[in-house]
Amino acid sequence: MDKLNIDFMKNVFSAKEVKKMETDTIAAISTPMGEGAIAIIRLSGPDSIGIADKLYNGKRKLKEVESHTIHYGKINDPRTGEHVEEVMVSVLRGPKTFTRENIVEINCHGGLMSVNRVLELALSQGARLAEPGEFTKRAFLNGRIDLLQAEAVMDLIRAKTDRAMTVAMGQMEGRLSKLVHQLRQTLLEIIASVEVNIDYPEYDAEEVTNHLLLDKAQMVHDKIEELLVTAKQGKILREGLSTVIIGRPNVGKSSLLNSLVHENKAIVTDIPGTTRDVIEEYVNIRGVPLRLVDTAGIRDTEDIVERIGVERSRKVLKEADLILLLLNYHESLTYEDRQLFEAIKGMDAIVIVNKTDLDCRISLDEVQTLACGQPVITTSLLKEEGIDDLEQAIASLFFQQGIETQDVTYVSNTRHIALLAQANEAINEAINSIGLGVPVDMAQIDVRRTWEILGEIVGDTVSDSLIDQLFSQFCLGK
Amino acid sequence: MDKLNIDFMKNVFSAKEVKKMETDTIAAISTPMGEGAIAIIRLSGPDSIGIADKLYNGKRKLKEVESHTIHYGKINDPRTGEHVEEVMVSVLRGPKTFTRENIVEINCHGGLMSVNRVLELALSQGARLAEPGEFTKRAFLNGRIDLLQAEAVMDLIRAKTDRAMTVAMGQMEGRLSKLVHQLRQTLLEIIASVEVNIDYPEYDAEEVTNHLLLDKAQMVHDKIEELLVTAKQGKILREGLSTVIIGRPNVGKSSLLNSLVHENKAIVTDIPGTTRDVIEEYVNIRGVPLRLVDTAGIRDTEDIVERIGVERSRKVLKEADLILLLLNYHESLTYEDRQLFEAIKGMDAIVIVNKTDLDCRISLDEVQTLACGQPVITTSLLKEEGIDDLEQAIASLFFQQGIETQDVTYVSNTRHIALLAQANEAINEAINSIGLGVPVDMAQIDVRRTWEILGEIVGDTVSDSLIDQLFSQFCLGK
Repeated sequence: MDKLNIDFMKNVFSAKEVKKMETDTIAAISTPMGEGAIAIIRLSGPDSIGIADKLYNGKRKLKEVESHTIHYGKINDPRTGEHVEEVMVSVLRGPKTFTRENIVEINCHGGLMSVNRVLELALSQGARLAEPGEFTKRAFLNGRIDLLQAEAVMDLIRAKTDRAMTVAMGQMEGRLSKLVHQLRQTLLEIIASVEVNIDYPEYDAEEVTNHLLLDKAQMVHDKIEELLVTAKQGKILREGLSTVIIGRPNVGKSSLLNSLVHENKAIVTDIPGTTRDVIEEYVNIRGVPLRLVDTAGIRDTEDIVERIGVERSRKVLKEADLILLLLNYHESLTYEDRQLFEAIKGMDAIVIVNKTDLDCRISLDEVQTLACGQPVITTSLLKEEGIDDLEQAIASLFFQQGIETQDVTYVSNTRHIALLAQANEAINEAINSIGLGVPVDMAQIDVRRTWEILGEIVGDTVSDSLIDQLFSQFCLGK
Repeated sequence: MDKLNIDFMKNVFSAKEVKKMETDTIAAISTPMGEGAIAIIRLSGPDSIGIADKLYNGKRKLKEVESHTIHYGKINDPRTGEHVEEVMVSVLRGPKTFTRENIVEINCHGGLMSVNRVLELALSQGARLAEPGEFTKRAFLNGRIDLLQAEAVMDLIRAKTDRAMTVAMGQMEGRLSKLVHQLRQTLLEIIASVEVNIDYPEYDAEEVTNHLLLDKAQMVHDKIEELLVTAKQGKILREGLSTVIIGRPNVGKSSLLNSLVHENKAIVTDIPGTTRDVIEEYVNIRGVPLRLVDTAGIRDTEDIVERIGVERSRKVLKEADLILLLLNYHESLTYEDRQLFEAIKGMDAIVIVNKTDLDCRISLDEVQTLACGQPVITTSLLKEEGIDDLEQAIASLFFQQGIETQDVTYVSNTRHIALLAQANEAINEAINSIGLGVPVDMAQIDVRRTWEILGEIVGDTVSDSLIDQLFSQFCLGK
């Protein structure tokens, strides 16, 4: 891009908006609540070292120590002189910190009382209680990470499998951000060329610009499409494959559930304090995170339909990513079985014919026909047979396109996916307009819109209220 | 004590037993499990820095960095090269550490998956998974703290009120340890004098030794008695005042419970993962931690007796430290009320006459008579009247002897209390023996027993199995 274009860009777009710098010092408990060996109170902001010094009693004043060093000492209540805790204090001076501000981490013996007491003392000496996600928000506002990377931090924390972690880690390291930034750069070049063409027609012929515009727009479009291909898998890696087990009473639904959970260890059961209507359990099947929906219902009543009613069951089925339909090897197919086949038509489902330890009384041919290409597995959950086949079937259903996590930059976040889809539409409109001979300065509007939409993903063009809303979903102390 | 005595002591008692040093490197997650902003994997042992270096990818090798410094970097899986986490690593070289060994703390983004993954990597590179309390056990075995201080660490973590924290903090700082060590020193001096007297009769006259022995033994006895006076309060500060609310249906038991809980905030509800038969809630009444027993029972059925049966109720009453008996201001005393008065005779109880917003139909004189000196409070829980009086009554019942936490060295741990009581008995026997003219070398046996019992408190004379058992009650990663 030549000098002229760069000058133009400066006029057309204000440089990346300078977000308002926060100037107060925030504090929060950064470890999960509960009895533990270590609890951390984190302070960030210009006065964090000063505030910590008012509480800390050690060999040296913290304001005198080197950055990135750790110091043993006591926390005293400055009002009474009482010893409150025995601590290790880490001093990290900005800008080489998570928030780019001065950070102090007070590392104390776990325990609800003492950690709360130390936090209270920090607040009494001038710190403000941090809002959820406010440390990461500062990292974003101070330019250390972009919005996409900030969101990946939370994804990393909430990851349910190794693969989900790898995806989040890749995003946190900026792989997806880099791609988005490259696309925006290309769009910027298009816009600059068009602007130059309009104001200095002697520099360029319209056809050349048209050509360049089309080429580059097409490239952006192709890249976005590529990313969107990873979206479904990325989203499942991030959120888990919502899985429902159905079948008549006594076919072995709770045995299946137990064998999936026990063989693979449930990763996350409900975390206290979060309210969920439906009880969920996560199991990791060869890297695929299954989110088993309404397992409590299955465990308690042996029948999801019985518990939540037919209407809601249908809704649960519709929303599921994967359905496991259980049949009884020892009984011929019933009317109900056939109805269940009907209900799951066209969905991602695996048919499991259980109880092969007993005589075969089912017509496996008919099962194959009804399955319409959905995989059919035979198992004896009692004898622990066939579970490997089932796990293999689940993994191949999910990884059918052979996409592997390692080398791919996944899009996994619903917000990002929606914005990419919008960007794709906008760039498509630009391409169509040019094809229809619309003047470039008109088509340019769509190019610019694409640039803006992509900017929302990384947080360059995004409203304060959206930022607030996104970070408020973070956990406290992050 | 002269040179001769010191020589003797060396012969009589082996110097403080050298506990076996652990030589492997241990690792554990040291923050509570759950989604949080920060999670820490802690390594301790000779190879902790070497193991961390195999995982850590930063500017410098950790083995080259200064002690007590913090370093940004990535954790890689050394088998695949995959980035697993973005971390801050603290390097702390022994002996100036919690365990006196080399310690590495890997400070990663919270999240169950990533913290487990990093721990797994550390284990794959030669660390052993730490047992519960093993870090603190090493601090004890390596002589940084004594057993009493180690136990106080756990008390600090589990403290339910500020006062309990202060007691634990005092013990952790060694206030109680120092006292016990002084007592043992005095006992040692007695023993040495006696030994000298026996083997070198020309150095001393028996009467002088007798006299000295009696004086010093009496002093030890008095000090132990003093400590035992604090035991009841210390134990309550540590464990909470087990409190039961009783009364006929509809007198306002759940209102009382709610007003206590809401006014003072329940400090700790059940922590998931710990199994308790009886559901408990803690409230902090002016520094007194009330452990409200079976609050679920009260909430659900409005009647503890109805829920758990008469027999178990009686048992609960017997084990309670405080009973709150509720009566109805608006009804005359019934046969049941009088039975309840009978049941709590001689116990620490407060009688609460509730519903003063209605007409008085109870005979307050009769209530006073039945209360037999137990405090009587009138309240209208509906109008939130009288709650202050009740709280004051609870506080004065507990702090009746005017003992304040700040200046007192409390004994709070059941194990310590039991040992102090035994030591008291043993030294008493010694004193009696001397009084009865028993030869000093006989009486000396009891003195020596006292010395050993006190040694069990601080962990100088204690079996390996007891040590294992004590530390196994610690939380993981501590």
